[in-house]
Amino acid sequence: MNPTPTYDLLSGTWTRLHHFGHLQSLAGWDQAANMPPKGMEARAAALAEMAALLHRMRTDPALKADLARAEQEPLTDLQRANLREMRRQWQASNALPEALVQRQQLATSRCEHAWRTQRPANDWAGFVENLRPVLANAREEAALLSAQTGLRPYDALMDSYEPGMRCAQIDRVFGEVRQWLPGLIRDVMAGQARDAVTMPLLDPVGPFPLAAQRVLCEQVMRLLGFDFEGGRLDVSTHPFCGGVPEDVRMTTRFRDGDFLGSLMGTIHETGHGRYEQNLPRELLGQPVALARSMALHESQSLSFEMQLGSHPGFVARLAPMIEAAFGAQQAFAPANLQRLLTRVQPGLIRVDADEVTYPAHIMLRYEIERPLIEGEIQIEDVPALWDAKMMELLGLDTRGNYKDGPMQDVHWPESLFGYFPCYSLGAMYAAQWFAAMRRAQPGLDAQIAAGDLRAVFDWLRQHIWQQASRWTTDELALRASGEVLNPAHFKAHLQARYLG
Amino acid sequence: MNPTPTYDLLSGTWTRLHHFGHLQSLAGWDQAANMPPKGMEARAAALAEMAALLHRMRTDPALKADLARAEQEPLTDLQRANLREMRRQWQASNALPEALVQRQQLATSRCEHAWRTQRPANDWAGFVENLRPVLANAREEAALLSAQTGLRPYDALMDSYEPGMRCAQIDRVFGEVRQWLPGLIRDVMAGQARDAVTMPLLDPVGPFPLAAQRVLCEQVMRLLGFDFEGGRLDVSTHPFCGGVPEDVRMTTRFRDGDFLGSLMGTIHETGHGRYEQNLPRELLGQPVALARSMALHESQSLSFEMQLGSHPGFVARLAPMIEAAFGAQQAFAPANLQRLLTRVQPGLIRVDADEVTYPAHIMLRYEIERPLIEGEIQIEDVPALWDAKMMELLGLDTRGNYKDGPMQDVHWPESLFGYFPCYSLGAMYAAQWFAAMRRAQPGLDAQIAAGDLRAVFDWLRQHIWQQASRWTTDELALRASGEVLNPAHFKAHLQARYLG
Repeated sequence: MNPTPTYDLLSGTWTRLHHFGHLQSLAGWDQAANMPPKGMEARAAALAEMAALLHRMRTDPALKADLARAEQEPLTDLQRANLREMRRQWQASNALPEALVQRQQLATSRCEHAWRTQRPANDWAGFVENLRPVLANAREEAALLSAQTGLRPYDALMDSYEPGMRCAQIDRVFGEVRQWLPGLIRDVMAGQARDAVTMPLLDPVGPFPLAAQRVLCEQVMRLLGFDFEGGRLDVSTHPFCGGVPEDVRMTTRFRDGDFLGSLMGTIHETGHGRYEQNLPRELLGQPVALARSMALHESQSLSFEMQLGSHPGFVARLAPMIEAAFGAQQAFAPANLQRLLTRVQPGLIRVDADEVTYPAHIMLRYEIERPLIEGEIQIEDVPALWDAKMMELLGLDTRGNYKDGPMQDVHWPESLFGYFPCYSLGAMYAAQWFAAMRRAQPGLDAQIAAGDLRAVFDWLRQHIWQQASRWTTDELALRASGEVLNPAHFKAHLQARYLG
Repeated sequence: MNPTPTYDLLSGTWTRLHHFGHLQSLAGWDQAANMPPKGMEARAAALAEMAALLHRMRTDPALKADLARAEQEPLTDLQRANLREMRRQWQASNALPEALVQRQQLATSRCEHAWRTQRPANDWAGFVENLRPVLANAREEAALLSAQTGLRPYDALMDSYEPGMRCAQIDRVFGEVRQWLPGLIRDVMAGQARDAVTMPLLDPVGPFPLAAQRVLCEQVMRLLGFDFEGGRLDVSTHPFCGGVPEDVRMTTRFRDGDFLGSLMGTIHETGHGRYEQNLPRELLGQPVALARSMALHESQSLSFEMQLGSHPGFVARLAPMIEAAFGAQQAFAPANLQRLLTRVQPGLIRVDADEVTYPAHIMLRYEIERPLIEGEIQIEDVPALWDAKMMELLGLDTRGNYKDGPMQDVHWPESLFGYFPCYSLGAMYAAQWFAAMRRAQPGLDAQIAAGDLRAVFDWLRQHIWQQASRWTTDELALRASGEVLNPAHFKAHLQARYLG
């Protein structure tokens, strides 16, 4: 007799969802990397059909009783964790009325589409008209989810990106960072200005042929352990890591005047890619075998890009590869490359920000979108708040510059409220992982400098990749590093690297 | 009141099938053009899941009554043609018991997989063991379909590739060709041998860089009207034309020692591609808006590759493009290129055959697989028959050479019995279309030589592409050219080009 018939039934349903999700994910990647423009309408219709099918499967009324019945069956710990994740997905899919979901899809699609031209035109007034219904729907979503879960509205939204994360924890963590970050930025900039006098920073001189950039990126991906037998690198306007764990589709973009941006972007996506490629295979397709959360995913891309990619020992390994790709330049000296990669310069644009100023962009957005969702402020209040916080955190005046201010990101037009914190949480987790690694492996930095990255990958594989969604994020952090999220490691990392 | 509620319901179902088919087709193309090896297992599982979903939709028991009810509704001619095609698809999907379908999938997959190594090893005995169950299942399919349709067994199989085509018509058409083809081959070869003495044929000297080959292929595709806004060219081991009408994914392969093979293969696939890109848009997704049949599809690829691609006027246009791609060579003189493209040489391999000897390969296969399916001969009889027919048709001895004989094609391992005739029917239709074009446009050849291909494309668009599946193939041919399939045009074409 099979003692877990209902669990097995559910497991079969999620395997089917995984198979259909494979085709959905592939079509999404293809849309960004390959699809010619006239394919758009048919692709959108095909993807909408698939989304509708997946939604029907996830909202099948039978699931409610099946989940309850399976919870009574004798399960292993892993199966129980899987069932917990199934219930979480089921709740998310069934939480919102279909009419609201459709209304929001319409509103975000209209807002995002108009934003593409409104942003370059700096048309804040036009943008507000489209963002208003998006925000109204998001508030309605948040209120509904809040009523169901007992969480405060912003937490209820954030929970879908970062399960278990709460404003209380963010406030504590960001509150700490806010204490020391502006001072740190000032100190770092002062130090870098002094250094620039004694030893001028050299910029690489292009053009850098795209074919050579691609070869270099693929070489570095190999060095970082990306498995090209189970994935690819292609080109898209906005780099991302898509596909499925069994076949990871990374993208990057090349500009012939700048190779460092694409190289570091590729290293970043390689972190995402290796997480996906190294998820446990025995339950693949089940929710418990998926990546844990957005912040954990970002902790992997930033472990690769920042902790490892800008590590002086690793940069010394990159330098000869860069020289082989583009010919010798003084700017390619390891010390100069290292300075280029760690140059700190407050700027208006989040995606262009360096490691040190980046959290300022995130804290600012969090401090605006949290009260915006919870009705404490209105859209009309955003520009003044934005400007005040940019001045306070980075000393920059943004008055009247909406396109490089609150209109710069696609997140709000797409109603991704609650997502922004994950970026900086990821940076903090990454610093926490490397601190744990150094405790376990005191010779780690020497190994990295010697080109031996096995200890890094082994630690990440064992503590993050192979754990997938088995634990809550707090529990995973505790098991991996002996503590839950602690921004002190991020501070120590920045101090060591930038003031050390 | 909507007078066609059931028709509209069915039309909605087929639109959904089209959307899901889009994702299926894309994943199939990706598998051939992009997928890394470790993605295979997950892709196969995802595609099997989609195939099962499509099968469930097509065998939904409600369809039977819906089709009958819709046939009673007041429909336009186009809707009625669409309903006819829906019924045809429905019959095909419901004709075979699920157990037989699964048994055959297993048998073909095993046979095809083993064939990949058995063919190079010339292992006929091993191959026969795997082909035996494939053939047994195919005979069972043919018998079942025959009982349902009243067609003879081979016709019942062929009908799924070439609706309406019957052995009686093939026998008549191939019978005629068999009369004059061996003599024509002898005459052409004798003439070409004489020419070679007075003016030696020059082979192009490689290597031909792959990047330059790709640029050349894309240029020629543009010249031939392929719309890159609605399609792409990529690389795969076996070239094909996939994707969907809204986004056509063509593939080719490049070898640095030979550019002509890939160029002509690309021109061939461009014919398939333009047919797909120019199917009528107003009912796209409905069966009536799909390409009519395999022979008609092949008539388009061969219109491009043979009628147009090897037309002396067109070759004169290609010559300077080839020279620009690879630098000047005497072999690139238009007259020499034209001779290279029309060189006739009997050989063992169908896919390498020239335009003149190709039908011999097809007639041979038809004359073997027809009695094989209908139980008049057994697999053990095939090698001797193969050899006798190769000797009779092309004067070649194939004794003991199974790998370049009956083991050379993937069609039998995959149970594609009834497919082979479409290749030569396509060649004949292509000649028939160009004869009709010349009647309508007496200056056609001069226009082609002047690089003006509009008359060709306009004729094909109006008479073939835009007709899609509105008519039976015979009716389409009649409307397009004033007669049903008539091999005299093919004979006249070969005589004019090769003996003229």
